[in-house]
Amino acid sequence: MPDASLLEAFPTPTDTPFVVEHVAEEFTSLCPKTGHPDFGAVTVRFEPRGPKDGGTCVELKSLKIYLQSFRTEGIFYEAVTNRIRDDLAALMKPAWLVVRTDWRGRGGIRSVIRAASGAVPERYSL
Amino acid sequence: MPDASLLEAFPTPTDTPFVVEHVAEEFTSLCPKTGHPDFGAVTVRFEPRGPKDGGTCVELKSLKIYLQSFRTEGIFYEAVTNRIRDDLAALMKPAWLVVRTDWRGRGGIRSVIRAASGAVPERYSL
Amino acid sequence: MPDASLLEAFPTPTDTPFVVEHVAEEFTSLCPKTGHPDFGAVTVRFEPRGPKDGGTCVELKSLKIYLQSFRTEGIFYEAVTNRIRDDLAALMKPAWLVVRTDWRGRGGIRSVIRAASGAVPERYSL
Amino acid sequence: MPDASLLEAFPTPTDTPFVVEHVAEEFTSLCPKTGHPDFGAVTVRFEPRGPKDGGTCVELKSLKIYLQSFRTEGIFYEAVTNRIRDDLAALMKPAWLVVRTDWRGRGGIRSVIRAASGAVPERYSL
Amino acid sequence: MPDASLLEAFPTPTDTPFVVEHVAEEFTSLCPKTGHPDFGAVTVRFEPRGPKDGGTCVELKSLKIYLQSFRTEGIFYEAVTNRIRDDLAALMKPAWLVVRTDWRGRGGIRSVIRAASGAVPERYSL
Amino acid sequence: MPDASLLEAFPTPTDTPFVVEHVAEEFTSLCPKTGHPDFGAVTVRFEPRGPKDGGTCVELKSLKIYLQSFRTEGIFYEAVTNRIRDDLAALMKPAWLVVRTDWRGRGGIRSVIRAASGAVPERYSL
Amino acid sequence: MPDASLLEAFPTPTDTPFVVEHVAEEFTSLCPKTGHPDFGAVTVRFEPRGPKDGGTCVELKSLKIYLQSFRTEGIFYEAVTNRIRDDLAALMKPAWLVVRTDWRGRGGIRSVIRAASGAVPERYSL
Amino acid sequence: MPDASLLEAFPTPTDTPFVVEHVAEEFTSLCPKTGHPDFGAVTVRFEPRGPKDGGTCVELKSLKIYLQSFRTEGIFYEAVTNRIRDDLAALMKPAWLVVRTDWRGRGGIRSVIRAASGAVPERYSL
Amino acid sequence: MPDASLLEAFPTPTDTPFVVEHVAEEFTSLCPKTGHPDFGAVTVRFEPRGPKDGGTCVELKSLKIYLQSFRTEGIFYEAVTNRIRDDLAALMKPAWLVVRTDWRGRGGIRSVIRAASGAVPERYSL
Amino acid sequence: MPDASLLEAFPTPTDTPFVVEHVAEEFTSLCPKTGHPDFGAVTVRFEPRGPKDGGTCVELKSLKIYLQSFRTEGIFYEAVTNRIRDDLAALMKPAWLVVRTDWRGRGGIRSVIRAASGAVPERYSL
Repeated sequence: MPDASLLEAFPTPTDTPFVVEHVAEEFTSLCPKTGHPDFGAVTVRFEPRGPKDGGTCVELKSLKIYLQSFRTEGIFYEAVTNRIRDDLAALMKPAWLVVRTDWRGRGGIRSVIRAASGAVPERYSL
Repeated sequence: MPDASLLEAFPTPTDTPFVVEHVAEEFTSLCPKTGHPDFGAVTVRFEPRGPKDGGTCVELKSLKIYLQSFRTEGIFYEAVTNRIRDDLAALMKPAWLVVRTDWRGRGGIRSVIRAASGAVPERYSL
Repeated sequence: MPDASLLEAFPTPTDTPFVVEHVAEEFTSLCPKTGHPDFGAVTVRFEPRGPKDGGTCVELKSLKIYLQSFRTEGIFYEAVTNRIRDDLAALMKPAWLVVRTDWRGRGGIRSVIRAASGAVPERYSL
Repeated sequence: MPDASLLEAFPTPTDTPFVVEHVAEEFTSLCPKTGHPDFGAVTVRFEPRGPKDGGTCVELKSLKIYLQSFRTEGIFYEAVTNRIRDDLAALMKPAWLVVRTDWRGRGGIRSVIRAASGAVPERYSL
Repeated sequence: MPDASLLEAFPTPTDTPFVVEHVAEEFTSLCPKTGHPDFGAVTVRFEPRGPKDGGTCVELKSLKIYLQSFRTEGIFYEAVTNRIRDDLAALMKPAWLVVRTDWRGRGGIRSVIRAASGAVPERYSL
Repeated sequence: MPDASLLEAFPTPTDTPFVVEHVAEEFTSLCPKTGHPDFGAVTVRFEPRGPKDGGTCVELKSLKIYLQSFRTEGIFYEAVTNRIRDDLAALMKPAWLVVRTDWRGRGGIRSVIRAASGAVPERYSL
Repeated sequence: MPDASLLEAFPTPTDTPFVVEHVAEEFTSLCPKTGHPDFGAVTVRFEPRGPKDGGTCVELKSLKIYLQSFRTEGIFYEAVTNRIRDDLAALMKPAWLVVRTDWRGRGGIRSVIRAASGAVPERYSL
Repeated sequence: MPDASLLEAFPTPTDTPFVVEHVAEEFTSLCPKTGHPDFGAVTVRFEPRGPKDGGTCVELKSLKIYLQSFRTEGIFYEAVTNRIRDDLAALMKPAWLVVRTDWRGRGGIRSVIRAASGAVPERYSL
Repeated sequence: MPDASLLEAFPTPTDTPFVVEHVAEEFTSLCPKTGHPDFGAVTVRFEPRGPKDGGTCVELKSLKIYLQSFRTEGIFYEAVTNRIRDDLAALMKPAWLVVRTDWRGRGGIRSVIRAASGAVPERYSL
Repeated sequence: MPDASLLEAFPTPTDTPFVVEHVAEEFTSLCPKTGHPDFGAVTVRFEPRGPKDGGTCVELKSLKIYLQSFRTEGIFYEAVTNRIRDDLAALMKPAWLVVRTDWRGRGGIRSVIRAASGAVPERYSL
């Protein structure tokens, strides 16, 4: 079951702005209608707030464990994407954050879902 | 025969804006002049309205069945693209929607048609 | 309905051996169980017999029309492949012939079927 | 000899704006200096005017025949590109149109020429 | 838990030899040491015996369900590969069969395991 | 008109065996049925006889001019391939020679023709 | 140990603005938690100030030696990126500078970090 | 020795604006420090002024000879790029011009240099 | 320092022959002449002996640690390859084993070294 | 001028057979007819004799300098290839050696030349 409490964060190491991106190409959850597995890739890109503003960054291993917690969950593409966006935004309160999920095809159709929090600069759009 | 009544929608799950994209790489219809089959890929990208505004998203399996309904139809590239745009825009009334069709070559020329509904942000242009 | 009578042949133009290959990447038939369309590519490779032996080569446009005749047929991957092999072998009686079909994925599994007639040299194996 | 009278057009099927693109990868003309053949690809992208404004779209087969009419013409890269732009703009009077030609190398240098008519939106630039 | 009883077979449709290949790119099991998920692709290639010899072919949907049954199993790469080889060989008793698994990297090392049953011709080696 | 007299050869520079390959990706001829242009690539691979045996190699520029002489010829794929094989074999009398032509698609089918003279070693097969 | 004193610079050769980019695909450091090596690519892009403003460019060989000085350092992705940005900005005081690090996957997740100094024009964003 | 007098130009054939691009992938010069050869690709993109303004375009063969004149020159990456930009800008006085050089790696680092003359539109940035 | 004692093995799980392949794309050692780092990929492929013959397979994590032990070693390409071959052959005494190292370029030349133990079947050659 | 005296060799480090391959992608010489530069890649693959037989391997840096000595030489493709084969075979007296040169196109035709010394095993053929 997706579990946001698995996520950990560490203080942003510098006040100079920078952009972080993590790509997990081995994501899997279950289709809530058929129970069959869905496979996809999850990309997360964000600009953390600086330490002066109490900014934090998600810890990489905890992100991996968190993403694995969807493995036995029956959940739609849109819900996966919005859920990850919400959990990470709540954890880090970043300057902005964008999540993109790329799903392998089902019945000859493959899908991509994008969800953002805050104002993502044009150049960092996913 | 293309049949918009095959399309089904479900309520958008959240009011936070997000973007949905479906790519069907196994589309086929018939050339209305020669009767020979045309093959192409259909990409649909849109931002649904939120549930507060009665927003909906097209259901993936119904989209597949709808696209299959072009299989025996003699119809031009432009008409396919505009028809899909119109049917999906009427179904979902999205914030914006863009349809792109990529057609395999005929006589050494391959074609791409793009049609939009509403103001597609630069970053989501197809 | 697959119709071998659509196939036409012309006399092999020379007695010096050569090898012909045709690749049709826009093949479609129907799944006999679900009625949903299957999409794939059909590759045919053969060495025609020479004119002294009454050898012939399949005519390209008739091959295209013949392959289109599977469009409304409910038929398994294996049957498509064996059928094409049998029809072309009967038409041309080539020195050897090999047919390979590459099917786009269904349920996350894509398939390839190979069927031959006569002794295909190692170097021309598909 | 390039012959604009080979081009035919049909009325734009809808007043809703859309964008058409044709890519001919099998273009050939002759170098006016050496007489040797030049090979390249021609891409045409445009937004037709709607039927209310008398808008038309180039017919695909006539475009193919028109492009074949350069086969025996000694003509420079720039002239090919500007000529196609002028002939298609005169035929269709589109909202905007852009032509791009990609030429295979000569003496280790390959070239690309772009020519436009009207204001091509940034997102549709070639 | 991997369950060979999920596999179903149908009689080989013809006595003329042919070769079948199925590629499942969405395979996942668990590492028996760490419990972390492993992701990979499974390729199965075989020549079925003909109907005169009681030959059968694995049914595609049952293969998919069978491969999904490894999802919650802690099992090594080698064991996955040998298990699939054994289960399919027992089911079909094919002329020959070869299984290849391609595993995404762990700690910077990616692995490939190949296991065969019977004499795989050189040209069909995976 | 294809003209073998355009071909020139120079004496093989050494008696130590070696293998020469020329790939012309800008080949064009005409379809003898429709008059429309065909486009393809021509690959020639051969082992020249040594100078002690009067061996020669085709001169590169003359090969280019010779291939250009097909530009206005209505000729089938098979005839192009056999003609080039015959003309080059007659010119050079090589230890062995193989010609492969790869044709861009017509009606959704692309073709490859191979023709050889002498015993082409397995490792040099095209 | 990362050592900025290894970096050398030479005066910018011209006052006309230009943009320099260096890509080091063979970067390695150590994970400060596990001690295991991390591998990645480092891209640096900048516009040097002109000689009238005392502008300098980093010398290529010294950049290589500087990047090698991370080889035995336990340091996080973010710190590597910010450190390189700070050291190069201090060395050259460029009009603008952007650093991007692309890290090979760990536990199925690969990461990208971007850090900038000054106002990077949209067209030169990494 | 790089020699701008090798460059020739011809009058721009039309006053309608268009964009020209030449890519020379076989460029080589010498490293002024070590004397070892450097290899790279040179891309030149520009919008010529029209004939009414006395605009000209660089002649392709003269560009090739000019680029060959760097073959025996010991010269830095930055100087090559600025020199080509200056020589071509002086020759043609174009509306704008941009030069990009892509250098193969040295010591594990590959470099890209960009230099412009005039205001290059965002869409034509290299 | 390369240390074969880091390698661990486990008993081959079955007497049915199978083939194992591990690819480590993040290998680095030092050039013994210049001290500069070398980067490459190491591929190991082998057929273990069965448990009846006391056969074993190298354990994956120990292989990773063993390969990391070259990180601070000044050692030539050939020596790396032969050393890995010898250490793994001594550990496992496999039916056959082949090691291939692919080295990134130095001075514009990239290298590949292959070393084998026992008779590697043609189809498993690296 | 190509100068075999630039080549240096070191004793083969082991009597166990292994195979060495060097690929130089930055080779250039001059066309003896036109004086224009030719660009290509040179691949050398060989099995050195062991130290018991006085076997040696070419030293990598000396190979680089030797290949650079063709930079100002007017020489045909075949002569380059045979010359390198002869010089390296004379230097090392390997069990077998094969040289392959891949030349960038001239007049739309690109060429490949292969020359061997000794009996190159099928699996190591270039």
